[in-house]
Amino acid sequence: DKPKFAVAAMPLIFRQLFEKESSTYTYLLADDETMEGVIIDPVDVTADRDAEIVKEMGIKLVYAMNTHVHADHITGTALLREKLPGCKTLIAKCSGAKADCFFEDGEKIQFGNRHLEARSTPGHTIGCSTFVLDDESMAFTGDALLIRGCGRTDFQGGSADTLFNSVHSRIFSLPDATQLYPAHDYKGRTVTTVGEEKKHNPRLTKSKEEFIKIMEGLGLPRPKKIDVAVPANMECGVYEVPASS
Amino acid sequence: DKPKFAVAAMPLIFRQLFEKESSTYTYLLADDETMEGVIIDPVDVTADRDAEIVKEMGIKLVYAMNTHVHADHITGTALLREKLPGCKTLIAKCSGAKADCFFEDGEKIQFGNRHLEARSTPGHTIGCSTFVLDDESMAFTGDALLIRGCGRTDFQGGSADTLFNSVHSRIFSLPDATQLYPAHDYKGRTVTTVGEEKKHNPRLTKSKEEFIKIMEGLGLPRPKKIDVAVPANMECGVYEVPASS
Ligand SMILES: [Fe+2]
Ligand SMILES: [Fe+2]
Repeated sequence: DKPKFAVAAMPLIFRQLFEKESSTYTYLLADDETMEGVIIDPVDVTADRDAEIVKEMGIKLVYAMNTHVHADHITGTALLREKLPGCKTLIAKCSGAKADCFFEDGEKIQFGNRHLEARSTPGHTIGCSTFVLDDESMAFTGDALLIRGCGRTDFQGGSADTLFNSVHSRIFSLPDATQLYPAHDYKGRTVTTVGEEKKHNPRLTKSKEEFIKIMEGLGLPRPKKIDVAVPANMECGVYEVPASS
Repeated sequence: DKPKFAVAAMPLIFRQLFEKESSTYTYLLADDETMEGVIIDPVDVTADRDAEIVKEMGIKLVYAMNTHVHADHITGTALLREKLPGCKTLIAKCSGAKADCFFEDGEKIQFGNRHLEARSTPGHTIGCSTFVLDDESMAFTGDALLIRGCGRTDFQGGSADTLFNSVHSRIFSLPDATQLYPAHDYKGRTVTTVGEEKKHNPRLTKSKEEFIKIMEGLGLPRPKKIDVAVPANMECGVYEVPASS
């Protein structure tokens, strides 16, 4: 049976944005009727670009939110909160980070007539969430699932065992046609689908035992920005940008 | 009246791919029923990635095509033609470049039950084309129209006067909701719409006289790769990759 990759119908405003230095994807979603929207995983260095797009498109940004406490870049949520009045910062309660608002597993994040369902998908960090669009046409997986890969599990409360369970029970349980948008890609790919990753992901098609062995053997260097980024991102949801800056 | 940005329904396989060095976007489209597809503006250094995606998705690539003879990177069409048997290279007849197949203004480029209409949009180069999807939900503008910008007009038969006419008569005449996908973006943006560019493009919202003045005053450096890329790209549509390479 051939896998399904077709794009679902979606009367939704949607923009994928890229930050080159950390290869991070930022996502802007808005309800085309009310023009209320959210931004997922913005980066500090591209906050001006993002605010300009939001303004030019006439979007009222209700939340600037993160899939998790990032270790490789500083979040743009604090800057967007300053630039776009009415915008609140949002993160999973269990991340331990500060923010204006929090969500728990299963909660709906509303923007206009649309919503994202927050699903806890820990394993890369303890507080990782995947955001699933109301019609299940798209999901934003953060670093839990990357295109043909996944986030590392060796710090920030990470666990390969937990990540394997999260992906299989909460992401691979979505329809095969669901488009998956990750927080990063290092090869210039922009999107994948559940069907594709269930078939071609070199790590997550393995048994849990093999997956744990792969993740233990990665031997990755410590992220360059971790000592700056993690403390900043734990506070960034409520950080007041100094008036003089 | 608020501009329309909503994504149209499209039972189509669609992938946007990015090449970092030249900030080039490559596009893969396929008919979800027959799995026949085309790739637009592939780059030599990412040909392996692109071929892998085509194979993993089960796409039969019928054409590897270019919007124009690029000056900033070497096209991946010759490599994909080698890697994917059955794939032919395709470019506008008026580009003067070699290829397996050519199209002229207004011709339909068929893949399965879907097609792209080739529209001549000269001005950046003499042979530039924009590819418009059958339902007008998306168009691939090459360097004729970039997000909040446009391609330079100072070499390869370029003309600001001609480019202004091309964009206004052949791209801005599409519905406001048509998603426009450019060959490049240098700020990490991935897509725009006709409505958005008609309202916010800093060059193409100007009068023709002002536009010509802007283009004449850009003072851009000569592209680093032009002396290698242009001759290669004039031949690349039929270049046989040596067996030993
Ligand atoms: Fe992360
Ligand atoms: Fe070009």
